[in-house]
Amino acid sequence: MRRLMGWKVILMNVSFYYHRAFSSQMVSIQQVVLNSRPGKNGQPVAENFRLEESTLPEDLQEGQVKVHTRYLSVDPYMRCRMNEDTGVDYLGPWQVSRVADGGGVGVVEDSKHPMFQKCDVVTSLNWPWQTRAIVDGKVLMKLDPQLVDWHLSYFLGIVGMPGLTSLLGVREKGHVKPGANQTMVVSGAAGACGMLAGQIARLEGCSRVVGICGTDEKCQVLVHEMGFDAAVNYKKDNVAEKLLEYCPDGVDSYFDNVGGQISEVVISQMKKNSHVILCGQISMYNKDVPYPPPLPAQTEATLKERNITRERFVVINYSDKHAMGLVQLSQWLKEGKLKVRETMVKGLENIGAAFESLMKGGNIGKQLVVVSEG
Amino acid sequence: MRRLMGWKVILMNVSFYYHRAFSSQMVSIQQVVLNSRPGKNGQPVAENFRLEESTLPEDLQEGQVKVHTRYLSVDPYMRCRMNEDTGVDYLGPWQVSRVADGGGVGVVEDSKHPMFQKCDVVTSLNWPWQTRAIVDGKVLMKLDPQLVDWHLSYFLGIVGMPGLTSLLGVREKGHVKPGANQTMVVSGAAGACGMLAGQIARLEGCSRVVGICGTDEKCQVLVHEMGFDAAVNYKKDNVAEKLLEYCPDGVDSYFDNVGGQISEVVISQMKKNSHVILCGQISMYNKDVPYPPPLPAQTEATLKERNITRERFVVINYSDKHAMGLVQLSQWLKEGKLKVRETMVKGLENIGAAFESLMKGGNIGKQLVVVSEG
Repeated sequence: MRRLMGWKVILMNVSFYYHRAFSSQMVSIQQVVLNSRPGKNGQPVAENFRLEESTLPEDLQEGQVKVHTRYLSVDPYMRCRMNEDTGVDYLGPWQVSRVADGGGVGVVEDSKHPMFQKCDVVTSLNWPWQTRAIVDGKVLMKLDPQLVDWHLSYFLGIVGMPGLTSLLGVREKGHVKPGANQTMVVSGAAGACGMLAGQIARLEGCSRVVGICGTDEKCQVLVHEMGFDAAVNYKKDNVAEKLLEYCPDGVDSYFDNVGGQISEVVISQMKKNSHVILCGQISMYNKDVPYPPPLPAQTEATLKERNITRERFVVINYSDKHAMGLVQLSQWLKEGKLKVRETMVKGLENIGAAFESLMKGGNIGKQLVVVSEG
Repeated sequence: MRRLMGWKVILMNVSFYYHRAFSSQMVSIQQVVLNSRPGKNGQPVAENFRLEESTLPEDLQEGQVKVHTRYLSVDPYMRCRMNEDTGVDYLGPWQVSRVADGGGVGVVEDSKHPMFQKCDVVTSLNWPWQTRAIVDGKVLMKLDPQLVDWHLSYFLGIVGMPGLTSLLGVREKGHVKPGANQTMVVSGAAGACGMLAGQIARLEGCSRVVGICGTDEKCQVLVHEMGFDAAVNYKKDNVAEKLLEYCPDGVDSYFDNVGGQISEVVISQMKKNSHVILCGQISMYNKDVPYPPPLPAQTEATLKERNITRERFVVINYSDKHAMGLVQLSQWLKEGKLKVRETMVKGLENIGAAFESLMKGGNIGKQLVVVSEG
């Protein structure tokens, strides 16, 4: 009898493994890998990315979490990750034919990590570009959907890294004082950070906020929806002249997302003892220069003569202020004090196109990819 | 000449390595290891821990951070870590002759992790019991000292895990409704969590808060400093009678830190559809029982008959609410709405004694060890 039972167990096991190996128990997923690094002109294109079919194992190891991706973020900094050497100390490069990753938000489907349970909303700065993924719970952060009234994409924008970048950039490097009649200029002003930075500068006490962006539609949004006092279309207007007109009392602080010629013009009009908030330099990311990119001698001289600060701002270095920042942003959002715009692209397969578009200024507000809807 | 220069370089290197290997470049530290697990009666004693001299290497690896320990926390849950099997799914055991660890706060002295810089204030749930330590930056969290007006020990109490436990325990499991004339009873009420839980219950809308603790001095502190309506000394008073007297409208919620007989008495007086916030069970930790420990049949029957909820509350499962919680606690602290008491012991060498004392109820408020002063 004992022997018979032994056979029975073995047969059951064989059947079980057969079932596992040859049935559809593996979970089919899609993923996006880096197909190639950008070519000689440095411009990234959708074809630098490639969609692949893959599978996930059905079973989790201890500490692992299976997540269903809802939204993925594409951000200008990712251009640096497309290079073999990112040039940025805290960023590792993406590898060709390996899954890319970045900011993401999703929902837990299964967990063998004690801190995460099914249906938890979670985020990571290194979310794999996959429809579903099995990740180490250590890389995940649990999110409270009430902070965004269940508008989960906001965790990648206003109540996420762009929001914190704008808030802490203004607070840590902007030297904004309420009642001091200050003017802030924002470049890349219709992007995720710029749009919020201008609004936050106003909330923090700037009396005048002027944006620089690349289309008339963006100018309209900034002035009529986001409360900017004025906006300059750098592709059409003479930026120097327009800034003189819109900033009659001079420029006290400059939230810089773009670098290059636009920044040279703005800096040339900044006051003595004023401040550049060095957030990003998107105009330079396709060029083979270190970060932050070097300035022309004339601009360097202006900074020195006028005692203008221009300190690199990296939001992850201010993690001590992230809790306070997220709560503040959530509160302003709920009070209607911060307006939001998002540019959504549907489908993981379109993430390369979304990134290409972002790098060409095709977005108004936060550029996102909707991978699955709730 | 080339050869000579070569020799010079070699000699310099020899001198350099000689200096490194034989001079006092290694950093001397003290550390506390688990000396032995508790004996048969289960009571932990100071001698279960042992102070040792050790050294740290001078140089950091990439990603590492060197920290100078300021405060270490001792907490009742650590009793479970003294067992070979903790009985708690998210807690690993301490190993004999290995450095113990727990909540800690300190200051960065050196960093090869991009997110941490010298003088940053940092914390970890797994801070090694050492005067100084080299740790992976991944286990550290940067803290904003302004949240506690530079009173850094508060990061281990009111604006730390005990504060979050009290706040989220009350909010998630307490079902407190302002204006509903509710009464909350708190056991272990003079401990780090109990003291805050009672105050928070009041802030959240309870109209009556009654504490249970083990000395008259603790009762005095609860009633005269912390705003409790009444306090019961369970070592002297008849708890059942006193609760009947102090809770004339019955008990709506019970923040339980102790378990055992006290909890049986409280539960016997709870209303229909009321709620136990199962935070801790210190009275049972020296016994060989799983967590949460089983209840007597009579108490189980009471819970069932009266539809009393008694759900396990584990603060790390609510990490999505930690940001909001820390900001709320900091705000109440600054507004003077939450009062704080700490019991400080000086010197890493006394951490075993501090833990022994904590487990015997020797503390009022948060029990801490001061390892170094700022």
